[in-house]
Amino acid sequence: MTLETERIFKYSNEDRGTRHPLGAHVLKPRERSQKKKHLVAAELPNTPLSSDCNSSRDAQPTNHWISKSMALTIILVSTWFFQRNGRAPSPGSSSILNVGDTQSGMLMRLAAQIADLSATLPCSGHGYLEIASTEGSAATCKCYECFGGVDCSQVINTCVIDLDHGDPTMFEDFWFRNGGNSITVILGYQRMSYFAQSKHVWFMESELDQQIRALHQVVGNAVTEGRHIVVGTGSTQLFQAVLYALSSPDQPKPTNIVSAAPFYSSYPSVTDYLRSALFKWAGDAAKFDPAAESAPYIEMVTSPNNPDGKIQHAIVNGTGHVVHDLAYYWPHFTPITEAADHDVMLFTLSKSTGHAGTRIGWAILKDEKVAKKMIKFLELQTIGVSHDSQVRATQILKAVVQGYASTASHELADHRSYNRQSSLQQLDTNKLFHFGSSVMQYRWKRLRSALNTSSELSILDFEPSYCTFFEKEVDHAPAFAWIRCKKVLDCQDLLKKNRIITRSGRHFGVGREYVRLSMLERNQKFEMMVDRLARIDSSRTPD
Amino acid sequence: MTLETERIFKYSNEDRGTRHPLGAHVLKPRERSQKKKHLVAAELPNTPLSSDCNSSRDAQPTNHWISKSMALTIILVSTWFFQRNGRAPSPGSSSILNVGDTQSGMLMRLAAQIADLSATLPCSGHGYLEIASTEGSAATCKCYECFGGVDCSQVINTCVIDLDHGDPTMFEDFWFRNGGNSITVILGYQRMSYFAQSKHVWFMESELDQQIRALHQVVGNAVTEGRHIVVGTGSTQLFQAVLYALSSPDQPKPTNIVSAAPFYSSYPSVTDYLRSALFKWAGDAAKFDPAAESAPYIEMVTSPNNPDGKIQHAIVNGTGHVVHDLAYYWPHFTPITEAADHDVMLFTLSKSTGHAGTRIGWAILKDEKVAKKMIKFLELQTIGVSHDSQVRATQILKAVVQGYASTASHELADHRSYNRQSSLQQLDTNKLFHFGSSVMQYRWKRLRSALNTSSELSILDFEPSYCTFFEKEVDHAPAFAWIRCKKVLDCQDLLKKNRIITRSGRHFGVGREYVRLSMLERNQKFEMMVDRLARIDSSRTPD
Repeated sequence: MTLETERIFKYSNEDRGTRHPLGAHVLKPRERSQKKKHLVAAELPNTPLSSDCNSSRDAQPTNHWISKSMALTIILVSTWFFQRNGRAPSPGSSSILNVGDTQSGMLMRLAAQIADLSATLPCSGHGYLEIASTEGSAATCKCYECFGGVDCSQVINTCVIDLDHGDPTMFEDFWFRNGGNSITVILGYQRMSYFAQSKHVWFMESELDQQIRALHQVVGNAVTEGRHIVVGTGSTQLFQAVLYALSSPDQPKPTNIVSAAPFYSSYPSVTDYLRSALFKWAGDAAKFDPAAESAPYIEMVTSPNNPDGKIQHAIVNGTGHVVHDLAYYWPHFTPITEAADHDVMLFTLSKSTGHAGTRIGWAILKDEKVAKKMIKFLELQTIGVSHDSQVRATQILKAVVQGYASTASHELADHRSYNRQSSLQQLDTNKLFHFGSSVMQYRWKRLRSALNTSSELSILDFEPSYCTFFEKEVDHAPAFAWIRCKKVLDCQDLLKKNRIITRSGRHFGVGREYVRLSMLERNQKFEMMVDRLARIDSSRTPD
Repeated sequence: MTLETERIFKYSNEDRGTRHPLGAHVLKPRERSQKKKHLVAAELPNTPLSSDCNSSRDAQPTNHWISKSMALTIILVSTWFFQRNGRAPSPGSSSILNVGDTQSGMLMRLAAQIADLSATLPCSGHGYLEIASTEGSAATCKCYECFGGVDCSQVINTCVIDLDHGDPTMFEDFWFRNGGNSITVILGYQRMSYFAQSKHVWFMESELDQQIRALHQVVGNAVTEGRHIVVGTGSTQLFQAVLYALSSPDQPKPTNIVSAAPFYSSYPSVTDYLRSALFKWAGDAAKFDPAAESAPYIEMVTSPNNPDGKIQHAIVNGTGHVVHDLAYYWPHFTPITEAADHDVMLFTLSKSTGHAGTRIGWAILKDEKVAKKMIKFLELQTIGVSHDSQVRATQILKAVVQGYASTASHELADHRSYNRQSSLQQLDTNKLFHFGSSVMQYRWKRLRSALNTSSELSILDFEPSYCTFFEKEVDHAPAFAWIRCKKVLDCQDLLKKNRIITRSGRHFGVGREYVRLSMLERNQKFEMMVDRLARIDSSRTPD
């Protein structure tokens, strides 16, 4: 990378610039050589509580010794096996040496992975380790925003907290604790073809289809029997595929796309960025009169809603298509009240398991023709969907389903696991929605109590509902906080002055007195955010 | 999956229906339990020669024993370590038992992978093993098209050979032989965020950027120093991103997209499927007069060309943008004559390493503004690119680069490794382009000699050129054969009657007397295809 290109690009979001205050924690040679074996850079989660941070640091020496001895033993044992048996394990391999190299090379990597899994968090759990590309040079801790120092243990209280995106890093902790069940391994020759073995969707892995159906069976949030499932590169791609599938190429005027304000801020831009003649953004569904329009319409219903978390229903009085975006209809965010059974339903991995980087979403469809047109769209836009992402999504969903496989429903409703931060330790289980719900319930209690006495900021109240998954009354705990400023006109500006980056209400089709901020960040950032919100006072300049 | 949905979808290409004649090879319990541990279904490559098939079958018992003993030993040794040391390796893990479970669970899977890697090919290398989803039920071999029987060892000479797509399954064999260097492992908590650590492209893994530059450095086919690299979900998405980046949202008329016929058959449909007001397909560049047009234009230059393999240059006499699609500019397909240094260059993993299912392509760009607009497009269309695919692409490219790391250039030019099928054994190395070039050179010799005396079919002749990578004169060996029928008007129809599915010339902007067929299929299918082509006689109905 030349200086020129170093200089050129900036984070697309300017505030991202503050994301990586660098440290320079030079590793010991032994540590370094182990890290060099990694297949994937160590991108590690935060620990749930600072007390955990300490205990993890205390435990470090012993754990390193365990993992390293184990890794070494695996390599030795297997090398011994190959030398002893001296056979080419793959057809056509021409020499024992070649085989030994290949096998032990792989074993070194697998051993490194085991070491990684059993090691404590580097960079104090507040950053990731960057391995220098050139031999002999040092690896350094790159700290996440708000943390610094050579090992990222130092909290930067003056930092900017970016909560503009709903990046679900909160879930890293669950998956770190369930590492053994959720590891994905793909060999070099696997999944090379454009085609999968599905009889239904030419690019879709049949096992992913099975696991998606199994997940909805466990959660009870959607009907899948007799329905078609189409995988996409995140639900954003599926949203576009649906617009394409429900519009006709021959229609004289573009289909109007509407959604009730406040609506998901990406709908307008994703609908209009290519200025398609098939569809166009037509704004707030509440102001849309189908009778006054000569073109067809599609109403997007996001429920629970992004940004405000409310349960939504179609409101346009017409005969147009209705598409249900159910990205947030999971037990950690909202009570599950029924198995949804709409014509078109969109779900995504990022908001169910937290794997946003995997870019996997799925559509559940009643109509075969719609499914086929969506498949054609995905073929034209990206020639299908990454098979590696599908393999990983399959493994992740399988781990979620298995976590509940041996659980009786009365255990699911176990009240002890609820609403107490201290219960986080008890929640070190393999039940994703119990973990997620516990964290979200805690965070919303924390936020509400912090804003209880605030003269500046207000948040919505929700009535609890009976959740068929947990089999009890459950409070809503949306993925985003939808905040209204009581005194100032530009809420985003007020929070920015207090070093909190949010998304203004104007992006959601409402006023600037509103902002949306993510509730899914890593624990330390969430705690800092709440503390700052509680102290906000528009009458004085923030310290 | 209900019967209803079983019935509903068909392969988007009707001829795909013949792709999976099912067999029902019931596995022994021991075999089955091992397979059940797999994280990823066994999708296995063919062996290059039938002699290899045999030897692989012969070797089976011993290899199975080796791998199983090794796998077992790894599990035992590591369990012993955990019991002996009895410490929670990850912070917050609440019990030793929990840790043991997690660790051995993972080790079981890793061991299964090692077993898989060192096992011989199931389903005779002509199919993949489908593991039944329900406990106790059998796993069965699903055979690739043209193979059948309980273990896919039976050749179906009457089968339809589908060569419509350029599915690069030919490369599976190389990656099977280099399994140890190309395994990808991703832990459950890794790569969960939308964001990567790149300072330049917010969703791009910096290590992938490094490996792409390293690969071009090794091959010498493109200048990357001081250039911007943007990753995409395959080069098809990047093609659309470029059209978006080079068009202005304010222009009164859409930008004309042109390419010299015969042009890549996907350009027209991918340009026009959304009926964008930003750009539209304008056909053959040879017939395009920029002076007669009031709108700007973009000329697509595919070199080597898809479908005909010719080296191409811009032909429109104007000042419009030129985009170079260099998907096939790799040493296994064409002599490398210079390091390409155009404003916009597109490359893809599928045609360089054969990993089509990973859906990774990259653009090399001179202009920062173009790069930034493309990044915005990728953000709008798919919120970036799968991080799992990027991790895998990084690992694959690293393996390719390392294969040449310790190789002096005179070795690269080693003539013994050329143009002899018997040399395939010698080519069981870690040099991707040597493997690819050897296979492609053999296949083109085989095809030319088969069509030498054909009164029905003709193919293009190419002059060899000096290749800077191999440091010698090298023949062109395109990824597709561009065939002209001498006697009949509809060449696709003639070949279809002979049970070979091809893509008609009309999709490429020329006549029906031409067809394109893939040269990148698995070996057995290629051999069957050549034998059939040699026997084609339009004067009689095929047997």
